[in-house]
Amino acid sequence: MQYIKLAEDLKFSRIIHGLWRLADWNLSTNDTQTLIEQCLDRGITTFDHADIYGNYSCEKLFGQALAQKPSLRESMQLVTKCGIKLTSDKYPERKINFYDTSKEHIINSANESLKNLNTDYIDVLLLHRPDPFMDPQEVADAFIQLKEEGKVRYFGVSNFKRSQFDLLQSFLPFSLITNQIEVSPTYLNHFEEGTIEQCQQHKIAPMAWSPLGGGSIFTAEDERSIRVRNKLTEIGEEIGAKSLDQVVYAWLLAHPATIMPIVGSGKMNRIDVAIQALDLKVNRMQWFQILEASKGRPVD
Amino acid sequence: MQYIKLAEDLKFSRIIHGLWRLADWNLSTNDTQTLIEQCLDRGITTFDHADIYGNYSCEKLFGQALAQKPSLRESMQLVTKCGIKLTSDKYPERKINFYDTSKEHIINSANESLKNLNTDYIDVLLLHRPDPFMDPQEVADAFIQLKEEGKVRYFGVSNFKRSQFDLLQSFLPFSLITNQIEVSPTYLNHFEEGTIEQCQQHKIAPMAWSPLGGGSIFTAEDERSIRVRNKLTEIGEEIGAKSLDQVVYAWLLAHPATIMPIVGSGKMNRIDVAIQALDLKVNRMQWFQILEASKGRPVD
Amino acid sequence: MQYIKLAEDLKFSRIIHGLWRLADWNLSTNDTQTLIEQCLDRGITTFDHADIYGNYSCEKLFGQALAQKPSLRESMQLVTKCGIKLTSDKYPERKINFYDTSKEHIINSANESLKNLNTDYIDVLLLHRPDPFMDPQEVADAFIQLKEEGKVRYFGVSNFKRSQFDLLQSFLPFSLITNQIEVSPTYLNHFEEGTIEQCQQHKIAPMAWSPLGGGSIFTAEDERSIRVRNKLTEIGEEIGAKSLDQVVYAWLLAHPATIMPIVGSGKMNRIDVAIQALDLKVNRMQWFQILEASKGRPVD
Repeated sequence: MQYIKLAEDLKFSRIIHGLWRLADWNLSTNDTQTLIEQCLDRGITTFDHADIYGNYSCEKLFGQALAQKPSLRESMQLVTKCGIKLTSDKYPERKINFYDTSKEHIINSANESLKNLNTDYIDVLLLHRPDPFMDPQEVADAFIQLKEEGKVRYFGVSNFKRSQFDLLQSFLPFSLITNQIEVSPTYLNHFEEGTIEQCQQHKIAPMAWSPLGGGSIFTAEDERSIRVRNKLTEIGEEIGAKSLDQVVYAWLLAHPATIMPIVGSGKMNRIDVAIQALDLKVNRMQWFQILEASKGRPVD
Repeated sequence: MQYIKLAEDLKFSRIIHGLWRLADWNLSTNDTQTLIEQCLDRGITTFDHADIYGNYSCEKLFGQALAQKPSLRESMQLVTKCGIKLTSDKYPERKINFYDTSKEHIINSANESLKNLNTDYIDVLLLHRPDPFMDPQEVADAFIQLKEEGKVRYFGVSNFKRSQFDLLQSFLPFSLITNQIEVSPTYLNHFEEGTIEQCQQHKIAPMAWSPLGGGSIFTAEDERSIRVRNKLTEIGEEIGAKSLDQVVYAWLLAHPATIMPIVGSGKMNRIDVAIQALDLKVNRMQWFQILEASKGRPVD
Repeated sequence: MQYIKLAEDLKFSRIIHGLWRLADWNLSTNDTQTLIEQCLDRGITTFDHADIYGNYSCEKLFGQALAQKPSLRESMQLVTKCGIKLTSDKYPERKINFYDTSKEHIINSANESLKNLNTDYIDVLLLHRPDPFMDPQEVADAFIQLKEEGKVRYFGVSNFKRSQFDLLQSFLPFSLITNQIEVSPTYLNHFEEGTIEQCQQHKIAPMAWSPLGGGSIFTAEDERSIRVRNKLTEIGEEIGAKSLDQVVYAWLLAHPATIMPIVGSGKMNRIDVAIQALDLKVNRMQWFQILEASKGRPVD
């Protein structure tokens, strides 16, 4: 496993495990504990959560496993998110999904996450979505308080565009340490909009969610996805990959921005595929071949 | 009335009166004076002009009223704009509408505005549109000269995108104090393009023109406008608003960027609707409900 | 001829000669030498190359002429580019066109350019295209080494968007001195995307490639091109231009960003047309008339 230094005393494993669908995997608490331990055994030490995952249930499922063996906590880095308010049977007063980045909500949400995860501290708290109704001073106040209370060590964002990142950063006395964005061979927006360039400029490593396009690289039948799948297959043969998803991981890992893919699988064999991608090398021409297949045209 | 501090010695009333259509209201000079006095009585102290409004006539109509009672001047802040050259019977040599941000034109235009408005100073002069032919050094030279001569106290822009704002600001020895932009429930571009975020970052309050979408919120029959109108009606009932336009003002006023809506009506009852919106509260969920109605889809 | 100061000890001629199509002109080495000397006689001292032009042949054709009269070198500024890898019979291992901004490739490419051009130094080396796979630290390392070795005096970019320029600049200990971009009356993207504004902000002069839209201003039959051609003809009569292309050059030269057009012709009469455009004056209204014809609508 590779480790990426995000701050003086914070390292992430290059491959991150994502708990987005934990509630769908129908695991017992023992099964979840086993999954966590198997990840840790393989060197995956960073786990990605959000308050809302699984209709507000995934953090708790993970926390129950952690409660069975609290010593695991110090071997891992916990990332979670706040800022979205989902319609839910648990919140019948909500008429729509919306964002809330008020000081009150950020602090309440972080406290709730601490409780659910059965931990004293969150390593990194992310704002889940850029909020067009954001008061950056309120966010700063919330972050500073959570840091001073020792509840959250570091802060970042997710899905933030350049201007949104700049705005929030300008109100903070410390650096945002990551931007978790969607990146996959069929979702290139953050290459095109300069988000990844901004990470490079700030010397921060982006986390990549849905690296497999939500599974579409395996199954989607649109023209673009087929083109990409064929090219991934071809490059996979050249580099000795075992599977399509492994080529995708290798493609992401090859990029100089030090992208950290989030693997959101409950199956150890899919997780191993990602880990083994660290040993594969997608060269520059191959990287562009996949890019070209996605764009459907050569570079200029 | 609320007042917003734009500089050490400059405050705007949160609700601004816009004189764009003054020439269409067919007011006598006495009527215009009465309108001004009624605004001032209600605490609206900021009046928004441009050289070109009413085919170059509105500033003069206002100035004639001011000449009848010059003591009103010190109770108000006058904003005007320059930089557009309109085709007009007054300028037969012009073949098209175009922009002119040359030093000569800015200074001439400001001098003309001073004369028309019957005043010795303009509180804030705005460049009306970003000029693709702008020489930022010439603009800076003009602004500095007008400031040194005491003719203009502060400067801003209107309809400037982020890059255009940054460019001009980088040539100036003082801060631009506002960006007057179009914002309404059916015109969200400046939320999406980061213009409002830029104002928040620079800690400047934007002025909002056409807050009612040029009246389209009342009358437009396209799908989007109907969706927005229905939602405004629903939220209006929840918050106790008297009318559709009042909900719109309350929606704009709720935003943390301290948006200052420009009310461009000659009827005191419409102006009062805006003022009373200051007492209403659109909460976060309601704000997003109107946003969602405009976008036609939930947030991500 | 006008000269533009790009750095303390570097000036470009306002009109730049472009060698993109040198291989197509079927010139003998003596003819090429004559062309170069005629340019220099008229004050055109800046010559624009790229490694890839003419399937990697143009630099060499130019260098052969220079070898016949090495004393010409000190009268000129040589610009060349690197960073694209083209499919070519010379590089059969390449399956597609792609970019390479690795340290190794930049240095190898510059060394190759030095050899082909028969010169000891390149005045300005440009990255030819923004590379989504760029490691800015590698580019910086390559640039610094080439500068220290005396092989390249200054560095710039070509076709870089704002965010890409900012990223690379942030890794360099010296200033990028130009951005070579496509600008013509029918290609306005860099006005709209803020690239030209960025050049103004950094006080660097952009080079303009394809100022005649690849010849389309003479021949294209789409509605937009016809509109532009008619307006160029009309303005040309007003300003006393000899030809359509001369109006285009005058339009580019009028802009306050100090645009330096690249004339890519092997015929001295076309080059003279560009030089003589320096004596013509497109005024502000005329500039906007051509802009309006291109956009197909008046300014706001």
